[in-house]
Amino acid sequence: MFKKVCIIGCGLIGSSIARAIKKNHLSNKIVSCNRSDSTNRKVIRLKIVDDSSSNIKKMVEESDLVIIATPLSSYKNVILKIKNSLKSGSILTDVGSVKKKVISLVEKNIPKNISWISSHPIAGTEESGPESGFANLFKNRWCILTPSNKAKNQDIKLLENFWKKIGSKVDIMDEKQHDYILSITSHIPHLIAYNIVNSTLKINNKKKHDIIKYSAGGLRDFTRIAASNPIMWRDIFIQNRKNTSIMINNFIKNLKDLKKAIKNKDGNKLEKIFTKTKKIRKEIVEAGQDISKPDFGRK
Amino acid sequence: MFKKVCIIGCGLIGSSIARAIKKNHLSNKIVSCNRSDSTNRKVIRLKIVDDSSSNIKKMVEESDLVIIATPLSSYKNVILKIKNSLKSGSILTDVGSVKKKVISLVEKNIPKNISWISSHPIAGTEESGPESGFANLFKNRWCILTPSNKAKNQDIKLLENFWKKIGSKVDIMDEKQHDYILSITSHIPHLIAYNIVNSTLKINNKKKHDIIKYSAGGLRDFTRIAASNPIMWRDIFIQNRKNTSIMINNFIKNLKDLKKAIKNKDGNKLEKIFTKTKKIRKEIVEAGQDISKPDFGRK
Repeated sequence: MFKKVCIIGCGLIGSSIARAIKKNHLSNKIVSCNRSDSTNRKVIRLKIVDDSSSNIKKMVEESDLVIIATPLSSYKNVILKIKNSLKSGSILTDVGSVKKKVISLVEKNIPKNISWISSHPIAGTEESGPESGFANLFKNRWCILTPSNKAKNQDIKLLENFWKKIGSKVDIMDEKQHDYILSITSHIPHLIAYNIVNSTLKINNKKKHDIIKYSAGGLRDFTRIAASNPIMWRDIFIQNRKNTSIMINNFIKNLKDLKKAIKNKDGNKLEKIFTKTKKIRKEIVEAGQDISKPDFGRK
Repeated sequence: MFKKVCIIGCGLIGSSIARAIKKNHLSNKIVSCNRSDSTNRKVIRLKIVDDSSSNIKKMVEESDLVIIATPLSSYKNVILKIKNSLKSGSILTDVGSVKKKVISLVEKNIPKNISWISSHPIAGTEESGPESGFANLFKNRWCILTPSNKAKNQDIKLLENFWKKIGSKVDIMDEKQHDYILSITSHIPHLIAYNIVNSTLKINNKKKHDIIKYSAGGLRDFTRIAASNPIMWRDIFIQNRKNTSIMINNFIKNLKDLKKAIKNKDGNKLEKIFTKTKKIRKEIVEAGQDISKPDFGRK
């Protein structure tokens, strides 16, 4: 499919893409670029890539596909370094969780003959680093493409095919819609999980032992989500701050409503709300986005 | 261990206890009482219990152990009906998630010669009803005992042994401490999950399809928690409303702090908070309260 693919930032997502490319024989050569030399040595030693170095220009050169898989706050730095080394006619993509700001940033800075098509594979685990990646991470998961004004149609097709070959289902969405929907389905759930764990940590330290001991009653599941990569999420919230802020306000308003109903012992209202929320679970399972098997009681 | 055990309310928890008693041969006879005749017929047909009827007095009679496994709001009604049918010297327990109010309610209403020892098995799934129970639900899970003033020491030992025989680890805690710790580890996480799913549902219906489609980015995990039994949770929040209210206030205060940091693009502050929350995950896994295997990316 490609002669050379370059992955910039070989963490959980980057290394999973590299593994999936190797497994599915989608490129003759695959290289990565990481700032840390120990990471570069590690990804070569683990045979995740054929070559890796902190010399970003050298890694990018002659690549048919360049994938930015760094935190969003590094994009500007990356783009300024690689823009003159990108191969004419190549495809540039990323795997970032927020689109609006980065799409125009990259669009403004790259040469005309590069197809810039932003990608967002909705896949991940709460772990980080190249060791935690695996080739099947994208299997049956959605990948949203958001082509820029500098995307050629044939390249959109090619990139779509690439994601499909590593197991994803592909959708195309504009950046505004993407950032709005993802703030609901991903960003706010993560922020709330971080906030609940943070609120718990602020409680008297003497109780900490008991809180950990009895965390299986619900808190446990939030700590898993709140163990995701701190740098990645810092950048996501800052870049999608408008949607995030609107959603936080909605959330607080509804939470105050619930608090009032609890205070007034308004059982009817609570029951009505909790019955409605139960229904959406069924729709998610039916849409193939989760399994119906319960796991709340698991060890 | 017992000659006759009676379970009042044979739902997920009640039916799991019945199954565990049968599996471990802990009673000669096991009966249940449910308001609905179809449930009574079902639990007999599924061989979960030996006998079942809506005649609560008849079911309770001659039982050495009576277990209330109904929603908290039914306790008063149940106690007034059974108080004169309880066998002298028997043990009365429950499986409720809030202690303070029910312990004194029951204490006030039962005869002197009954050992009233409240139990809280911290186990469950998001499913409800007798079909969803299973004998291993309590295995390796904590069960907190909160003895009332009417509990005899030898009966506390016996009940502790009972929970251990069906797989639980047992702790003893007073009601105030219980309701405080559980509001943090269980009640607030559930309320927040309900609130996030409810906030999502209130959003423009046209977006609902996309929200379900891309729910694997985090929202999915909240919908699972928010699919728990609505009646049970309605009662928990109302009975533990003081702790719940304090925790909601803390939560909102911290969320507003996060919102401010995001608005001010205060990356340092966000990174610091998200790094701290990551650490507690490790402690929970080390305490054996969850597995370290990631499941965020699962199908």
